[in-house]
Amino acid sequence: MMINNDNNNDNNNNALKNEKQKVDLNCDLGESFGAWKMGDDEAILPLISSANIACGFHAGDFDTMRKTVELALDYEVAMGAHPGLPDLQGFGRRNMAITPKEAYNMVVYQVGALQGFIRALGGKLHHVKPHGALYNMAATNESLALAIAHAIADVSQGEAILYGLSGSALIRAGREVGVPVMNEVFADRTYQTDGTLTPRIDANALITDHKDSIAQVLQMVESNAVTTVTGEVIALEADTICVHGDGASALQFVEEIRQTFKKRKILISAD
Amino acid sequence: MMINNDNNNDNNNNALKNEKQKVDLNCDLGESFGAWKMGDDEAILPLISSANIACGFHAGDFDTMRKTVELALDYEVAMGAHPGLPDLQGFGRRNMAITPKEAYNMVVYQVGALQGFIRALGGKLHHVKPHGALYNMAATNESLALAIAHAIADVSQGEAILYGLSGSALIRAGREVGVPVMNEVFADRTYQTDGTLTPRIDANALITDHKDSIAQVLQMVESNAVTTVTGEVIALEADTICVHGDGASALQFVEEIRQTFKKRKILISAD
Amino acid sequence: MMINNDNNNDNNNNALKNEKQKVDLNCDLGESFGAWKMGDDEAILPLISSANIACGFHAGDFDTMRKTVELALDYEVAMGAHPGLPDLQGFGRRNMAITPKEAYNMVVYQVGALQGFIRALGGKLHHVKPHGALYNMAATNESLALAIAHAIADVSQGEAILYGLSGSALIRAGREVGVPVMNEVFADRTYQTDGTLTPRIDANALITDHKDSIAQVLQMVESNAVTTVTGEVIALEADTICVHGDGASALQFVEEIRQTFKKRKILISAD
Amino acid sequence: MMINNDNNNDNNNNALKNEKQKVDLNCDLGESFGAWKMGDDEAILPLISSANIACGFHAGDFDTMRKTVELALDYEVAMGAHPGLPDLQGFGRRNMAITPKEAYNMVVYQVGALQGFIRALGGKLHHVKPHGALYNMAATNESLALAIAHAIADVSQGEAILYGLSGSALIRAGREVGVPVMNEVFADRTYQTDGTLTPRIDANALITDHKDSIAQVLQMVESNAVTTVTGEVIALEADTICVHGDGASALQFVEEIRQTFKKRKILISAD
Repeated sequence: MMINNDNNNDNNNNALKNEKQKVDLNCDLGESFGAWKMGDDEAILPLISSANIACGFHAGDFDTMRKTVELALDYEVAMGAHPGLPDLQGFGRRNMAITPKEAYNMVVYQVGALQGFIRALGGKLHHVKPHGALYNMAATNESLALAIAHAIADVSQGEAILYGLSGSALIRAGREVGVPVMNEVFADRTYQTDGTLTPRIDANALITDHKDSIAQVLQMVESNAVTTVTGEVIALEADTICVHGDGASALQFVEEIRQTFKKRKILISAD
Repeated sequence: MMINNDNNNDNNNNALKNEKQKVDLNCDLGESFGAWKMGDDEAILPLISSANIACGFHAGDFDTMRKTVELALDYEVAMGAHPGLPDLQGFGRRNMAITPKEAYNMVVYQVGALQGFIRALGGKLHHVKPHGALYNMAATNESLALAIAHAIADVSQGEAILYGLSGSALIRAGREVGVPVMNEVFADRTYQTDGTLTPRIDANALITDHKDSIAQVLQMVESNAVTTVTGEVIALEADTICVHGDGASALQFVEEIRQTFKKRKILISAD
Repeated sequence: MMINNDNNNDNNNNALKNEKQKVDLNCDLGESFGAWKMGDDEAILPLISSANIACGFHAGDFDTMRKTVELALDYEVAMGAHPGLPDLQGFGRRNMAITPKEAYNMVVYQVGALQGFIRALGGKLHHVKPHGALYNMAATNESLALAIAHAIADVSQGEAILYGLSGSALIRAGREVGVPVMNEVFADRTYQTDGTLTPRIDANALITDHKDSIAQVLQMVESNAVTTVTGEVIALEADTICVHGDGASALQFVEEIRQTFKKRKILISAD
Repeated sequence: MMINNDNNNDNNNNALKNEKQKVDLNCDLGESFGAWKMGDDEAILPLISSANIACGFHAGDFDTMRKTVELALDYEVAMGAHPGLPDLQGFGRRNMAITPKEAYNMVVYQVGALQGFIRALGGKLHHVKPHGALYNMAATNESLALAIAHAIADVSQGEAILYGLSGSALIRAGREVGVPVMNEVFADRTYQTDGTLTPRIDANALITDHKDSIAQVLQMVESNAVTTVTGEVIALEADTICVHGDGASALQFVEEIRQTFKKRKILISAD
């Protein structure tokens, strides 16, 4: 769901969402590298509406990217770039002290490379979602967030949607720069009072019961709200839900979300 | 000079060139990496008509690419991608046993990345010239040459010109695929009877006297011919001349070529 | 089994082997990289007598190397370095045009790095086995083979054993340089009349029936001979057998070899 | 000068130093990478007593390392390993969120690799000095500092000296672990009241006048003290001085230090 760049339209937007009952399911794909396989892209592709494709810095390589774009086209899933830090060994998960200029340039490079495959194979770049430490740093660091938003606007000529942590500095930067944004929420993570995710090192960071996860997803999608770890209910935009495709349990969980959405007449769509 | 893809038009083309007396001067740029500087891009840019910009595999990085595109735009020099083998330590000069599919994918990736910067900063991709071992392997290996030609056609939607060794398998592949091509010649290298360059390990591989180099350049541009090491005169297309910008002598040589061309009313242009 | 460096002693050596009935079982380990897992090192370790540990160029990283050395120490398996070409994406399997000097230096670097972990954690470097394209190129290219043999001699101060393709240029180079060598044979590959492996692209390159593989292994170990694809019986040294640990079938095959050896009183040992 | 690991001996140590009037001059070397040259190692080598050799992560490669060890042996300069973060493009200068375990492993790997060349070519590892961001992080982060000290102790079997910022957490960690340490000081940087260097972004971070630098060096070496930017005189150990070899001015400065030391009968030595 494309969010209007005008903050004042957020309410209209929500009204619209309540009518349409629509949400995107996104998943990180194309994370194999050379001889090393990761994930089961073909198993999750039929279940999601948008794919975040690794671009060769934290994962993926030129052969994997080409294959992943081909698969996404086959399954008619919206294609997004998933740029990360230049840290292959660390899978882009280790914070690095990069400058906003470096952030801008590494996003342009990686998104450009993916656009190369999309252009060569047919199709259209739908969105950009920073990966790992780049995503997390941009959730709170405003100058990094602005640099990334500008990079996405410039390299996609304003056409790609920025996926960022719901309500984060990255979403605010996208709105400031005039990039369409989608607020990302997590089904299996708990939230704190300030709207941020409970850090993974905390005992209550993860929701392990599928029922609780689905309840949280429904609350976020239908009510634009979430109940925090301290029991408060806070407002929160939920345009796209991040799901995982590794392992039988993860796939089953996505199936359960899909069935729940079907019953509640919530459309799964990246549009 | 854009060569018509129809082989039958080559003669017309030559006739056209004889009228127009036009040739391109290209140089490899953006070959710094991180903290390491290479070349003096700002010194050579005013003297050339097209720049081959390294794309991060054999040289260059995302920061260097952005700066190089900015410089090329400032100097109004035609911008080309200069994709190489994934061999940073070897500067892309060591042959690697890659498949045609890998060649296709690595060209799409690197050209796409450069297009990202060109799109972000304004401007247009003019050409693609493979680098080092990729260039040399594609000069004789037909399946690699075809893969590279297809990659350039696909990623640039047929708009970028392929620069290849004059008369090589790469030029033939470009014509077969329908990519516009420009035959590249070398001012300071001698040629063998079959039109290939004398290998660097041979004593007479290099032309060290500026006068001899300029005489060879004029012969190639004005007569579409070159005198080989064995004294024969063979036909050879000369659409673009590769020059170097490292060091005072190299820069002075380019100045001399420019003055010679001015006297002979040969226009220096990438168009 | 350490082969005496004196060629004239080969016959004595064979006589010795016939008495002792001893052979080494080696397997490539530590091939994970960062977040990517490969192989099941803990499943194969109890079944083998020597481990070839990846050193970070074609596979492995400093965290994986440390863990693999710890595991090899736990299981009391002889530790070897497994240096490869600097081609992570290609898993070191793509031939590269490297010089003998580069080969020497990349072997010293990688073996030195592994020795660092072995020294830090206790233990002793037992052998060095080049990986993939480096192994294959050194099997026929004498100057590469000599450079690698010298590197192993120098970096291990003559203490590490060189594992090379049985009867290859690499084995000959080790003997010339004065490095102890062990001839490696393959249980699941067929041999040609000249003693080389049938190339993988040929239909009859692989032995798929476990019984046939075990028969070939016994022939090689007990008779120092192998029956080629054309039916001839040729001489061949068999000091160490390369086995694989990926998948249930591979592990079961190693179990079968072990049981066969037990019945025939062939000792499995790297000493 | 090797510092006794017993803190109580520091006073004796200083007394000893005042008698001996001895100090080490160290310089970072071997920072070229592939086709990219950095520094003029042969110009600085005759002027220094110890060399910190890059190990391939932030700079250097296996060919450069071999050449640098050969040069250091020729000039009889003490050889040290200079391990850095795995960030070639950032020259190891960007902080990365690594764990102590990763720090331990990356130091063992890099020091081991350099030891490989030292063993192959003859010679002895004298010291280890972490580079760039690894050095700076370890100056204040105690768990990283301890991990690095343990790595050096383990990989060198207690024989290599740890070079760290004078009075930093890294020096304290070395003493705690029982590694010999040398306190490093900087001739061209100003100090703050707490003994740390003034950050480079501050206007008064650098001492630009050679006379002022030499005065500071003498004060540090002869009085074990330094005058801070706020005018106070604080205690500070000075066992080794970091100098640079890039450019005529840097080399001339080292010459001036050497002449000053000669007049004052201060011996330049890594022993």
